[in-house]
Order: sequence, then C-alpha cells, then structure tokens
Amino acid sequence: MARSGVVAEVHSIDSVSQDSLGAELYRAYGQSLRCGFNTDPVLQRTLAHVLAHPGSLARPRMSVQTGLAYGAERQSTLDLAIALEYFHTASLLFDDLPCMDDAAVRRGAPCVHRLFGEPAAILAALTLINRAYGLVWSALRTVPLQHQVRVFEFLNDRLGVNGLLNGQSLDLNFQSSARDLAEAERVARGKTVPMIEIALVLPAILAQAPQRDIQLLQRLSLFWGLAYQLADDLKDVLASQSDTGKSAERDGRLGRPNTALVIGIPAAVGRLGRLIHAGDRLMNRLIAKRSSLNFLNDFRTSLLDELTNAIEEAGAIPIDRVR
Amino acid sequence: MARSGVVAEVHSIDSVSQDSLGAELYRAYGQSLRCGFNTDPVLQRTLAHVLAHPGSLARPRMSVQTGLAYGAERQSTLDLAIALEYFHTASLLFDDLPCMDDAAVRRGAPCVHRLFGEPAAILAALTLINRAYGLVWSALRTVPLQHQVRVFEFLNDRLGVNGLLNGQSLDLNFQSSARDLAEAERVARGKTVPMIEIALVLPAILAQAPQRDIQLLQRLSLFWGLAYQLADDLKDVLASQSDTGKSAERDGRLGRPNTALVIGIPAAVGRLGRLIHAGDRLMNRLIAKRSSLNFLNDFRTSLLDELTNAIEEAGAIPIDRVR
Repeated sequence: MARSGVVAEVHSIDSVSQDSLGAELYRAYGQSLRCGFNTDPVLQRTLAHVLAHPGSLARPRMSVQTGLAYGAERQSTLDLAIALEYFHTASLLFDDLPCMDDAAVRRGAPCVHRLFGEPAAILAALTLINRAYGLVWSALRTVPLQHQVRVFEFLNDRLGVNGLLNGQSLDLNFQSSARDLAEAERVARGKTVPMIEIALVLPAILAQAPQRDIQLLQRLSLFWGLAYQLADDLKDVLASQSDTGKSAERDGRLGRPNTALVIGIPAAVGRLGRLIHAGDRLMNRLIAKRSSLNFLNDFRTSLLDELTNAIEEAGAIPIDRVR
Repeated sequence: MARSGVVAEVHSIDSVSQDSLGAELYRAYGQSLRCGFNTDPVLQRTLAHVLAHPGSLARPRMSVQTGLAYGAERQSTLDLAIALEYFHTASLLFDDLPCMDDAAVRRGAPCVHRLFGEPAAILAALTLINRAYGLVWSALRTVPLQHQVRVFEFLNDRLGVNGLLNGQSLDLNFQSSARDLAEAERVARGKTVPMIEIALVLPAILAQAPQRDIQLLQRLSLFWGLAYQLADDLKDVLASQSDTGKSAERDGRLGRPNTALVIGIPAAVGRLGRLIHAGDRLMNRLIAKRSSLNFLNDFRTSLLDELTNAIEEAGAIPIDRVR
C-alpha cells in the first residue's frame, strides 16, 4: 500500500502515543473498579486478580483511537473503552466455567474459577458487568441526548439476546443444529462480530461520526469478525492434522461450530483470503478519507497476523493476499 | 391502627387498582424481553420458561405504587419495576446454581438449570440483566438529567460491588468469617436490604420525591430488610427444632449466616419484634404524610406475615407487636 509522507508521519506519532495510551489503558483497567471497606475479602481478592490480568487491551486501544479520530472527548472514550473490556472480560470468565468451555488457563494464569472457585468467578464477572454499565453511563454524560440513545441502544443490542449472548448460546448448542456454512457463520456473527462492532463502531457513534463512516466501520467489523473466526477455526483444524497443538481439534471434540470443518480446508483458505482482502479494501478506503484512522492497520495486525502465520506454518498454505 | 374514612376509601380503590396493576405487571414481565428471529432455540425456550414464572411480583408492585404516589410517569415506573424484577430474577437464577445454593425448586417449578442446563440458566440470567439495564435506560428518558444521575447511581450502587453482589459474596463465604451479630447483619444489609431499597427508594428518587421522604423510605427499607432476613433465619431454626421442615436448618448445614443461630431464639424473637415495631412506626408516619402510600401496609403483609405466622406456629412464640 502506497503511503504519502504525511500519512507515514502521522503513523509514527501514533506509534508513540500508542505506548502511552497502552499505559493509560492498563492503569484505567486496573483502577476503574474499586471495592469498599465492607467488600467481602474473597470478592476483593478475585477482582484484584482479574484487574491485574488485562490481556492485550487491543480492543479498548482501538476503541479509544476510533473515538479520538472522530473528535470524541478523551475521558468519554476511555470510559467507554474500559467498559467494553470489562464486558469482554466478564464474558471470558463465564466462557471458562466448567459448564461452558471448562478452560484451565486464561491470560497467562490459571482461570479465575480454578483459583477462587466458581461462585467467586461468577460474582466477579457480574461485578465487572455492573461497573461496565456505570462506565458507559459516565461516557454518555458528555454526549447530546439524541446520541446517548444511539450509543446505548447499539451497545445493549450487541451485548444482548440478539448479540453476544445469543452467539454464545448458538455456540454451545451447535451440536443439535444443522452444520452448514450459514449456521457456522451465524455463530460467528453472533459471537465475534458484536465485540468488534462495540470496539470499532460504538466509539464512532459516541463521537457523532458521519453516517457513511459508521456504515463502513460496521462492514469492516463484519469482515474482520468473520475472518478472525474462520482463521481461528482453520488453525484448530490444521493443528489437529499436524498433531502439535495441545488443544488440537478442540472444536470437533466439543461439537463446536467450525467453518473450516464444514466447508473443508481449501475452501476455508480461499474464503479467509477473500474476507481479509475485502477488509483491507474497506480499511484503506477509510484511512484515505481520514488519515487519523491509520491505527486500523495495527489492529488488523494484532487481530489477524498471528493466526494467519500459524495457519501458514501449520499447513504450509499461503493465504492469498493476506499480507 | 385507626383509619379515617377517607383513607379507608383510598385503600379500597387501591385494592381494585392492585388487581389490574397485578395483571399489568404480569403482562409486562412476560413481554418486556423479546427474542429475535435468530435467537438460539435453547435460549428462547429457557427465557420463555423464566418469563412465564414471574413470582409474586410484590416488589415491582410496590415500586410502581411508590413511583405513582410521588407523581412519576406510569410507563417509567412500569419500566423501572420490571427492570428490578429482571435483576432480581437473574440473581435467583445464579443463586440456585449447583456451585451456589444448588436449589431444586423455584417459583413452583424445577430450577431453570435443572430444566435447561447450567449454561442456559447463566445466559438467560445475563440476558435478563442486559434487558433490565435497557429498561432502566427507558425509564430514565422522561426524567431531568440531574435526577437521571441520582437514579442510575443509586441503582448501580445497590446492585454492585458494595451492594447485592457483595451481600451474595459475604453470604457464600460466611463460613470463614467471624460469626457474630454484626457480621450476620452485615450479610443481611448486603443481600436483603438493597433489593428492598431498589423497590422502595429508587422509584421515589425517579419521581423526584422530597428528600425527607426519601430518607424515611430508606430507613424503612433497612428495618424491613433486617426484619425479613431475621424472620427467615428464625423460621429455619425453628423448623429444624420441630423437625418438620424439609430444608430444616439448611443455613447451619451450609454454614450460612443465621442471626437466630448466632444470638439465640429468645433474643432473635425480641429483636424481630423491635424491628417490625420500628418499621410500623415509620410506615405509619409516611402514610400520615401521604395517604397514597397506604399500599405499604399490603407490602408489609406480603413481606412479613407469612414468615411471622410460620414462626409463631413452629415455636408457639408470640412475636411482640407483630400484628
């Protein structure tokens, strides 16, 4: 991709601000939920552990950068970004429970329910959700009423019975459903796409970005969400074939939807290439309109590159136009 | 208690409107959360079951009546009331899980996790919470900004890490805590009082009631919350003594806080009488100020009479001044 000198300069300033932004997000993630004097010690310890393990913070980083690119207030974008990361963390705490994915490790540490017990994991997750709504509330207070409604309804729709929670339910109950491409992608649309939309579209709505930009960001979220899910599915299948991955073919074992299993590896590789290519075209169009959106390149890298590298290594399959 | 003819008349009109209000709440409880075309069938069936089993609706009834007594808009009070009942129902779905209370029956039916599995119970509870915040959001839209902040912050505080979630955590982890009156009542303050405050104080804040009334309603919530918890504790202990209750001395077995076990039956009976007496004095003071608050008598009856009757039958102990 050709870049003008000006864009390149903006990008290098971005890189610096990302480091300080990273530190700011890390601090805000750890400090935006405070216990009181009377808080139960077990709940306190559980929350302290959760708040000390924030993950990559790639999503809230993108959220803040999108909000700022469209001129939103800094504190509002930070509150919104931490809120979405608290929602996301809560969803992971639930996903990891024995009755869901029964996971052992999360963010480089034993899962919260293994360290503190299931009740503590559940109550910590609910506390994160409670606080996340409080942060959304704070973020909205600087915004005109009409936009408040749009932001809140977009967020709550993507989290709720027609969004993330539905995606999780479809995922868990996939065994009893028809296993075709449409069905597998319905799960991805429910589960992966809403979290990207919340990170990428929501801050643009908060910032009262032009309607056309919001539409483009929404389509970009769809391409990236589907690409991410498909890449994750492919990695899982290829790892099981090369027999190296420790959680190899986990989806097949758990009866989870896996598009690569449904349509086969060659078709999945082709489809992944097309999704990434379509995403890149959209992303470049957005950056051409507004150079401050250049950070989208970094998010694309953090979202997809590790997965596509793993796929190419495992399967020795070049994914057309990935880079 | 002496009542003037006017108050008695108001009360009889109330009784009629309560029936239609009951029907209205029943309908609203069942219809305020709607699934989409793409909602997972298992999640749909689970939610349909939950929404068809609304419990007594005594709390949302009191919430609406309080809001209306202070002049709030009808639709706002209804939205707020259903929101609080969804929060409450969600907390019951979590409480009943095997890792928490491992309950078998709720609202006259097998517990949701026993009918539809733990993941479905968890996702249904989260869907209720998501929708409850949406309803709170709707309820707030008719209120001036300054009061919006008060309503939202009061609600979120009572639900969160210093409210209901903390009470639940204290309750679960009581085994490892000091077992004295202060500690047992701290759990009641965390667990029982916030839900009554949300039903009784929150709609008054929504309606912009006078500050003095809000303070009185807050104290009334405290007395009633502590009385309810203590009566429940006493019933548990007495049922185990008379050996009739099927879940007799459940608290002792589970290591849960039970004030009657901590301070002994005679002291608990005396304390319950004093709490109820103090609540009655406050309630009558509020009704004398505003006759439309007369419905508080009905709530007091639904909250406490069944428990105190059970206590008197089981222990043949007259609770001083209960009636």
